[in-house]
Amino acid sequence: MRMTPASPDPKLPPVRINLMSDTQTRPTPGMREAMARAEVGDEQIGDDPTTIALCERVADLLGKEAAVFLPSGTMCNVAATLVHCRPGDEILAHPSAHVLTREGGAHAALGGFQITPLPGENGIFTPETFRAAIQPVSRYSAPQRVVTVEQTANIGGGTVWKKSALDEITAIAREHKLITHMDGARLMNACVATGVSARDMAEGWDSVWIDFSKGLGAPIGAVIAGTDDFIDEVWRWKQRLGGAMRQSGICAAACLYALDHHVDRLADDHANARALARGLAQIPGIAVNQPETNLVFFDPAEAGITTQRMISELRKRGILTGALDHRIRACTHLDVTAAMIDETVAAIRGITAKA
Amino acid sequence: MRMTPASPDPKLPPVRINLMSDTQTRPTPGMREAMARAEVGDEQIGDDPTTIALCERVADLLGKEAAVFLPSGTMCNVAATLVHCRPGDEILAHPSAHVLTREGGAHAALGGFQITPLPGENGIFTPETFRAAIQPVSRYSAPQRVVTVEQTANIGGGTVWKKSALDEITAIAREHKLITHMDGARLMNACVATGVSARDMAEGWDSVWIDFSKGLGAPIGAVIAGTDDFIDEVWRWKQRLGGAMRQSGICAAACLYALDHHVDRLADDHANARALARGLAQIPGIAVNQPETNLVFFDPAEAGITTQRMISELRKRGILTGALDHRIRACTHLDVTAAMIDETVAAIRGITAKA
Amino acid sequence: MRMTPASPDPKLPPVRINLMSDTQTRPTPGMREAMARAEVGDEQIGDDPTTIALCERVADLLGKEAAVFLPSGTMCNVAATLVHCRPGDEILAHPSAHVLTREGGAHAALGGFQITPLPGENGIFTPETFRAAIQPVSRYSAPQRVVTVEQTANIGGGTVWKKSALDEITAIAREHKLITHMDGARLMNACVATGVSARDMAEGWDSVWIDFSKGLGAPIGAVIAGTDDFIDEVWRWKQRLGGAMRQSGICAAACLYALDHHVDRLADDHANARALARGLAQIPGIAVNQPETNLVFFDPAEAGITTQRMISELRKRGILTGALDHRIRACTHLDVTAAMIDETVAAIRGITAKA
Amino acid sequence: MRMTPASPDPKLPPVRINLMSDTQTRPTPGMREAMARAEVGDEQIGDDPTTIALCERVADLLGKEAAVFLPSGTMCNVAATLVHCRPGDEILAHPSAHVLTREGGAHAALGGFQITPLPGENGIFTPETFRAAIQPVSRYSAPQRVVTVEQTANIGGGTVWKKSALDEITAIAREHKLITHMDGARLMNACVATGVSARDMAEGWDSVWIDFSKGLGAPIGAVIAGTDDFIDEVWRWKQRLGGAMRQSGICAAACLYALDHHVDRLADDHANARALARGLAQIPGIAVNQPETNLVFFDPAEAGITTQRMISELRKRGILTGALDHRIRACTHLDVTAAMIDETVAAIRGITAKA
Repeated sequence: MRMTPASPDPKLPPVRINLMSDTQTRPTPGMREAMARAEVGDEQIGDDPTTIALCERVADLLGKEAAVFLPSGTMCNVAATLVHCRPGDEILAHPSAHVLTREGGAHAALGGFQITPLPGENGIFTPETFRAAIQPVSRYSAPQRVVTVEQTANIGGGTVWKKSALDEITAIAREHKLITHMDGARLMNACVATGVSARDMAEGWDSVWIDFSKGLGAPIGAVIAGTDDFIDEVWRWKQRLGGAMRQSGICAAACLYALDHHVDRLADDHANARALARGLAQIPGIAVNQPETNLVFFDPAEAGITTQRMISELRKRGILTGALDHRIRACTHLDVTAAMIDETVAAIRGITAKA
Repeated sequence: MRMTPASPDPKLPPVRINLMSDTQTRPTPGMREAMARAEVGDEQIGDDPTTIALCERVADLLGKEAAVFLPSGTMCNVAATLVHCRPGDEILAHPSAHVLTREGGAHAALGGFQITPLPGENGIFTPETFRAAIQPVSRYSAPQRVVTVEQTANIGGGTVWKKSALDEITAIAREHKLITHMDGARLMNACVATGVSARDMAEGWDSVWIDFSKGLGAPIGAVIAGTDDFIDEVWRWKQRLGGAMRQSGICAAACLYALDHHVDRLADDHANARALARGLAQIPGIAVNQPETNLVFFDPAEAGITTQRMISELRKRGILTGALDHRIRACTHLDVTAAMIDETVAAIRGITAKA
Repeated sequence: MRMTPASPDPKLPPVRINLMSDTQTRPTPGMREAMARAEVGDEQIGDDPTTIALCERVADLLGKEAAVFLPSGTMCNVAATLVHCRPGDEILAHPSAHVLTREGGAHAALGGFQITPLPGENGIFTPETFRAAIQPVSRYSAPQRVVTVEQTANIGGGTVWKKSALDEITAIAREHKLITHMDGARLMNACVATGVSARDMAEGWDSVWIDFSKGLGAPIGAVIAGTDDFIDEVWRWKQRLGGAMRQSGICAAACLYALDHHVDRLADDHANARALARGLAQIPGIAVNQPETNLVFFDPAEAGITTQRMISELRKRGILTGALDHRIRACTHLDVTAAMIDETVAAIRGITAKA
Repeated sequence: MRMTPASPDPKLPPVRINLMSDTQTRPTPGMREAMARAEVGDEQIGDDPTTIALCERVADLLGKEAAVFLPSGTMCNVAATLVHCRPGDEILAHPSAHVLTREGGAHAALGGFQITPLPGENGIFTPETFRAAIQPVSRYSAPQRVVTVEQTANIGGGTVWKKSALDEITAIAREHKLITHMDGARLMNACVATGVSARDMAEGWDSVWIDFSKGLGAPIGAVIAGTDDFIDEVWRWKQRLGGAMRQSGICAAACLYALDHHVDRLADDHANARALARGLAQIPGIAVNQPETNLVFFDPAEAGITTQRMISELRKRGILTGALDHRIRACTHLDVTAAMIDETVAAIRGITAKA
């Protein structure tokens, strides 16, 4: 298979309703204007004022000493483990975690780290599972160094790690001198869904990052936060990985705009997701999860239609969705309206009726 | 915890019955004499006749083109994956496999490989489990490169991978262009237990090694076999890993002696293991596996005594055993006689009676 | 020392003349407008039309089959060697090359590659030096895999690898089955200075990249080109390194604008560099190179003033320069005018007169 | 080229005088008897009394807290840098050092370390060269972590690092917080040649090892010494690299025998080397170094005969020598007598006369 992404098929109609991913949000006119007017400098030598402002704001938001801007969430995860671990160390994560399933083996390839799966329902492992996985130090075992959670758990169904669950994990980690890392790709969704602040969610976690190119709607970038010493070491790896940029203020301006305008409105995405799930639940043969945030997973098998067929039929109607394992994932975001949800439910009802 | 092994406690009586591991067998007088008389040369430049003879003999035994001598079985596993894989590749193995649990994270640390666990009973995964774990090639996943089995499955209970099971694994691997690697640390035990030849067991496996420092009774060394090209590349990694030696004929002579004198007698070890299991099964409260080869696992919990306590009481009586997870492992080998088995059963009966 | 870049000293006057680096160019109004209007999509799944257009244009410019957009030139170098080499391989480069001096040991850290220096005048090694460094294949040596040049040679003085020299290197490489990689950070400067096309400069090189955030004036990004298979593998590493972005069309639009508007004008930068060198050459005690492109290196030691003191005195006057080894580097670019050059010469003359 | 060493050509006469390398020494009858009688246990769990005794003796000899037995000197170098460095770190060494020229790129491949050459005459770099190579800490440079010397400098001509030179290196290293590592493959030759004790030579060096399979005449093994914490970490890497063995007392017994019987006699090897050099110096056209220890390098070019031809002619007469770069290396050791030296000089004289 080719790794290079293929361009879209020109024979298909244009996508009118994009439920594929919140990574596909396009910058709004206001965000584009903020980028066009951004004050910039050379980020790599500490001279880009907009990037500096963004990092200070995220560090404050997450209650950490410092932060750094990176071109992607994947680089946040990779740089964090490169700082936290030495070759041969073990990272504990849910088997569906992005670090294990979506980063191409990067932590092994670039750092020499072994990721050990901690299973659990809906992308969440329990404190008991975590505790049971901890092993005595020995020459024969990879040293256990980091435990990581993904907030929200994407493949788990967009499920939220509750504040109490997070606190139990950090308590066990502290007891065993393990480092804690939060992949907060959709942390702001979890905050809006639960009413817990980002600072409280991040409390006790050694490193935490948020992604701006998902529901927050910026084109590029993520910011990772931690102690001054940690961020200092992340800078070394940012340089090595090729994440040190120049006039990154252009992108950082979009992220600042997102923090000002696109956080509270995540509640709309969650309402749309719930509406979609409600609508699908009423269609005979469609099995659907109860969404906690902006991700709806459904399976049309009982309706006598395969996942691939359903995706293909929707696409012919200008509705884009994606497959994750055997299910279909529909993701709500700022380019998706309530009317589009209604249209999508109707389309699925129609496709199912014909099946 | 310290990594440097501690010397034995001088306050304890000497060990008279060593059931800890077949790695602890001591060279017999005949083997010592073979070493003392060994013809030697500089192995690193291809000039040690005894090492050359050993490699040719093992290549023939396993039906492969070529073979190379290494100081340990761990180096066989590490060098093999370093040849077979590139950084970021995935290796599929049972969660109890030596490569995952006993090599200190070496495959991640030295090669950048991610090992993905394939669960199954008694250290054996099924063809269905293997097939279900195979994923489409994608930029987001670590490329799946190698499937490996451990013959016999040590932590699984010394269980044997049957020839038919091995054939099913290699067939699926070929279908998906995966490389096959057999950790044959106790392959000869499996052969003696089943009557299947080593050559048949190794058929269809791209790389296979046997350990001489376990039940075969030699002091040092393992030999890995495969195609000429594979062995050529193993030599490069042997040099880098520090496994290239000089007058290794001293050690190779012991291995040749083991092939001549210590293979058939593995049947005695298996008979002793069965006798031990039979004896233990008659003691109330002792749960014991039915050994297929030379490893007996038992759990005294129902007899009201902990694993650690049982090990400690046995040690006071000069009987050495070891713990693996919550169970006790007793291993039979050429320094263990039938009379020792009887004495051990009696000792455990006595300890249990007092509990 | 801290790795996190420090913000500029607020006690100093603002920088009016920035000769520090062409990486510090700020997007022009026209470029900002192109970014604000850019058509975008999700680059990571092949759906960003502006990024696709940029990659096709650069592939064509360099005469290669395909190309990919990355957040930095460093990531181009790192991803290229990760594709070309296996751990333990050797890369041959000039001792002043960016891969060896400015990337924090990334090629060793992330790939396990040893870089062997090929010395030569002004950042250029000779074919003879290259040929003499080639060694027979052996288990004892790191396999020689890649030879790389930096066009122009930054620390060498912005010197140009002539087309004839490039051809001699690729001929020797082909003869010894070595892969050829061109770090073309300032390739367009070399083309404008010599009149040789980028396609001709890139001919025979397996991988070539150009940087858009240097003299071309874009805020972020570089594009690497090669065969389809090479670019396919680069995509895998782009994903692992965290270089896969989303609506990268915002940045790609600036790069396309730069290709339309900022290539020919590099001649102005070269003229300004020559003017600066001419001016400095007339100041007693200032040793200065004869610039081939846009980099001027000078040493004020003979004028009785240290490099650090000169940089500091210039900064007080609002003129920013940088130190590289014992010399001062002044770099011309689109934010530097002929009048600024005159002012800089006058300032240095004044500082020197007082020393 | 194949990495697997080829067996010797059977058409050639047997080797009577082996000047190829001191690695080719064969165990003497006394040494074989010591091995045959060695008391053994399981080294991997700290239970081999002979290996323990050897490690304690070497730790004492070198004035260090602890030591560990490894199958080769290469593994000593590799394990030491794996403990001392993190990926991306820089090691400073002479360009002819074993770590750079003879270990197949292992330090880059297995650890991710960049080795930077410090040139100097005869394998020895000066304190000035070392000091000039030290760079300020920066995100752009690989962190400098370790300086290493090779005692004696093999490719440098078997030259000795004098105690005063060693002290200057360690003083500079301490000043810049660099770790010091001595590859003491032939340290005992340096001690015998200078009269300085091994303890004094090793003073101030963080890690030091000696090889037993060179002039000391044992078949296999090297011992590395350092602090308790260092040795503890070396044990972890010994396990990962596959260097943890079982009844290694067989080999350790030979090393203890070598310390008792083969150290003082290195003076004979040095005398034989000097005699060889004196003899060769009297043959017209032979350029020869003045040996400080047991290595004689000579070049017959001026006598009108190529290096390869001379080696081949000697081999036909049963005399084995080797080529290193353009020169011939002859190495004296315990299998080489004064009479053999005379015969070798006569043979070279004869070959030269006919040329």
